[in-house]
Amino acid sequence: MDLDYDAATIRRLDKDHVFHSWSAQAQISPLPIAGAEGSWFWDADGKRYLDFSSQLVNVNIGHQHPAIVAAIQEQAGRLTTLAPGFANDVRAEAARLIAEVAPGDLDQVFFTNGGAEANENAIRMARLHTGRHKVLAAYRSYHGATAGAIALTGDPRRWASEPGLPGVVRYWGPYLYRSAFHATTEAEECERALSHLRDLVAVEGPQTIAAIILETVVGTNGILVPPEGYLAGVRALCDEFGIVLVADEVMAGFARCGEWFAVDRWGVTPDLITFAKGVNSGYVPLGGVVISAEIAATFADRPFPGGLTYSGHPLACASAVASINVMRDEKVVENARRLGDEVLGPELRALAERHPSVGEVRGLGAFWALELVRDRATREPLVPFNAAGPAAAPMGELAAACKAEGLWPFVHFNRTHVVPPCTISDDEARAGIAILDRALDIADRYYTGA
Amino acid sequence: MDLDYDAATIRRLDKDHVFHSWSAQAQISPLPIAGAEGSWFWDADGKRYLDFSSQLVNVNIGHQHPAIVAAIQEQAGRLTTLAPGFANDVRAEAARLIAEVAPGDLDQVFFTNGGAEANENAIRMARLHTGRHKVLAAYRSYHGATAGAIALTGDPRRWASEPGLPGVVRYWGPYLYRSAFHATTEAEECERALSHLRDLVAVEGPQTIAAIILETVVGTNGILVPPEGYLAGVRALCDEFGIVLVADEVMAGFARCGEWFAVDRWGVTPDLITFAKGVNSGYVPLGGVVISAEIAATFADRPFPGGLTYSGHPLACASAVASINVMRDEKVVENARRLGDEVLGPELRALAERHPSVGEVRGLGAFWALELVRDRATREPLVPFNAAGPAAAPMGELAAACKAEGLWPFVHFNRTHVVPPCTISDDEARAGIAILDRALDIADRYYTGA
Ligand SMILES: Cc1ncc(COP(=O)(O)O)c(C=O)c1O
Ligand SMILES: Cc1ncc(COP(=O)(O)O)c(C=O)c1O
Repeated sequence: MDLDYDAATIRRLDKDHVFHSWSAQAQISPLPIAGAEGSWFWDADGKRYLDFSSQLVNVNIGHQHPAIVAAIQEQAGRLTTLAPGFANDVRAEAARLIAEVAPGDLDQVFFTNGGAEANENAIRMARLHTGRHKVLAAYRSYHGATAGAIALTGDPRRWASEPGLPGVVRYWGPYLYRSAFHATTEAEECERALSHLRDLVAVEGPQTIAAIILETVVGTNGILVPPEGYLAGVRALCDEFGIVLVADEVMAGFARCGEWFAVDRWGVTPDLITFAKGVNSGYVPLGGVVISAEIAATFADRPFPGGLTYSGHPLACASAVASINVMRDEKVVENARRLGDEVLGPELRALAERHPSVGEVRGLGAFWALELVRDRATREPLVPFNAAGPAAAPMGELAAACKAEGLWPFVHFNRTHVVPPCTISDDEARAGIAILDRALDIADRYYTGA
Repeated sequence: MDLDYDAATIRRLDKDHVFHSWSAQAQISPLPIAGAEGSWFWDADGKRYLDFSSQLVNVNIGHQHPAIVAAIQEQAGRLTTLAPGFANDVRAEAARLIAEVAPGDLDQVFFTNGGAEANENAIRMARLHTGRHKVLAAYRSYHGATAGAIALTGDPRRWASEPGLPGVVRYWGPYLYRSAFHATTEAEECERALSHLRDLVAVEGPQTIAAIILETVVGTNGILVPPEGYLAGVRALCDEFGIVLVADEVMAGFARCGEWFAVDRWGVTPDLITFAKGVNSGYVPLGGVVISAEIAATFADRPFPGGLTYSGHPLACASAVASINVMRDEKVVENARRLGDEVLGPELRALAERHPSVGEVRGLGAFWALELVRDRATREPLVPFNAAGPAAAPMGELAAACKAEGLWPFVHFNRTHVVPPCTISDDEARAGIAILDRALDIADRYYTGA
């Protein structure tokens, strides 16, 4: 395909014909992107950006990994598409590999196109498995934008889609820096978050609750790493009351947290894990649910009432097979862990020492957040919750400063997340952090604390 | 990727690890498929099948079209994935081409991964555009399996997901062969279906109704071709009350009905068209919403509150660009129309003359249904509505007879649909119908009428 469009043409056609997500169409001016490689992408004018956002935190393996590109090209020549009712070598192999890296007896995989559909189907399974209706979902969470997934979502993106799917009850997860429980230590936050959840189960009625869903490590809403003991506590609560534990690892899974699945870090086995993004770095749309033996058995002789045309898409599955093999061969999971422990963690904590506006640094693996504040004592956020327009200006200026220097940051509310490909080199990571360092001077200018 | 799995291995891995849609997992034995080309696919033992189902009615262009395979391979080498917030040449070009073939001022495209997400976002747009809440959706319809799309769906696949998204009100569409309105002519069915819809709008309150959604030609639920005047009547009703008309063309669009969009056949312009499947024959997961200028304008300065990680995926968009260009160059739309008029229509009507069990033949383009009955006078279906197990046996036997002779049929309830690739040759179509002819002897055995 030789389109040969220059940057101006792409911008014009985009404006005329592409309707962009989460945006006021007249107020955006999308940058035309021409190519990408490794931790970098470049625009149609040739300007290069270091991708500290991994696109939407999906390019875990880096851009255009040659082995995965080759696998897609080869599979395209063999068999691109196939109805879900058939068996197929790459479909079976992708499921086998995912089951292999999944914990416990989570051995069956239901494939979807992305994360929202994965969560939709996980909830459907949990409801039918338990015969119960309610789902407990956290504030400060994102689970996708279809009617079921957005009802589970605990951030402002839900508001415009209410009333949504009935039966969702919301709880607060642990977040010591802005504790809902007035806790002052991680241990206290953990204990109080668990007792809050237990109280909620009691007052909602355990026999009405099908599932508790959580992001193992909360992603877009702040890289909230659960305190030691929290996941085990939720697991025990679920066991006690026959509630299905759904771990949404759409963002946290597949090396992002320095583990195949983030739950591995705490040795906890959920009943269902939802995945997408990192499973194949989004080279082809793919997501799914990994299912425990017990839940799979529910649908042995009773039809599972869900599906989609492209479930188990061969091209998507081939790219997942290649990606998991590459992650193994190139030790990408181990690299993400090392990166977090040795480079990103220490370097970002050093930033916090230099910049008063950095209120907290948290994360693990290749999954980090800097929470920016106007005052360390009051923890007043640099910009208000869900700010838009002029109120959000400080974060906009920070992002612009990064981009000007060739760093593409991830910015959400009063945070910037450092979420590069899990394959980024130490030098690239340090170069990106050096740019962030300079950009944080802007945030510091808004600092009003002592 | 050299997996080199034999048929038995694929079957075993599939059983152990792949969770299949809409199925009782222990009761299925998915056939391992190894490859496909044109109108054919073959299993891992080398047995070939003529694809009268186009997989899930998505392979409109035929299997493994070399120009589309080449476009995917080339784009894979250029840029596989890109966040939705950017502009990009193939993303813009795919949107431009879709806008070009779409009717009226439907010039903006919101990309999704498939049909369910397309309908989810269409409904979201309609609600926010009108500030109203209710959506009128038809019985005998399928709109996808996410919480919103399944709530819109009017077939039994919805039952297990109730209560679903609130605000859906259901109506009966035109279907003369089993008229909900006791009509005896197409014109009467049309008039009565429209007056039923108008009454429903009145009693539900026009100012509460955001959208009316319909499949332009109902697909899985029977290939129900609307009578002359019906779509224009719905359009007029929508105009009168400021209701958004959503045409779900996930199955009917992109050559299936011998038109780019099925609405073209009747010269009617909806406000939103949802698409997937035929847009790129499912070579890469892709769907979307084509949006009128008026609805797009609603989101000019007000953010659209919806999105997904893979909106406007470059690999998917590249395959759509190639597919639309191939459809133009090879006159696939025209071929589907001719095929319906000259081959499928006449040949299938001839089948009806030979087989008493064929109660009705209906369709257009490459989109046909044979409705099978036990009695032409009473129109008693060959198997009951939503039959499973032994009650569905006659249809199972019919399907098995087709497969034994190397024809892969589409079977739903008491119907078999003839929905081959729109590129099928006349000889292939005739060969497939000859097999169907023999298989229909089985259905005739269950015939109890005069
Ligand atoms: C944790 C989490 N779950 C679900 C989703 C939704 O995935 P998708 O955009 O593929 O529907 C996302 C997307 O960002 C996510 O971060
Ligand atoms: C008319 C129609 N709408 C929507 C869908 C859902 O599309 P998907 O399976 O891609 O979600 C289908 C699928 O068969 C369909 O036929």
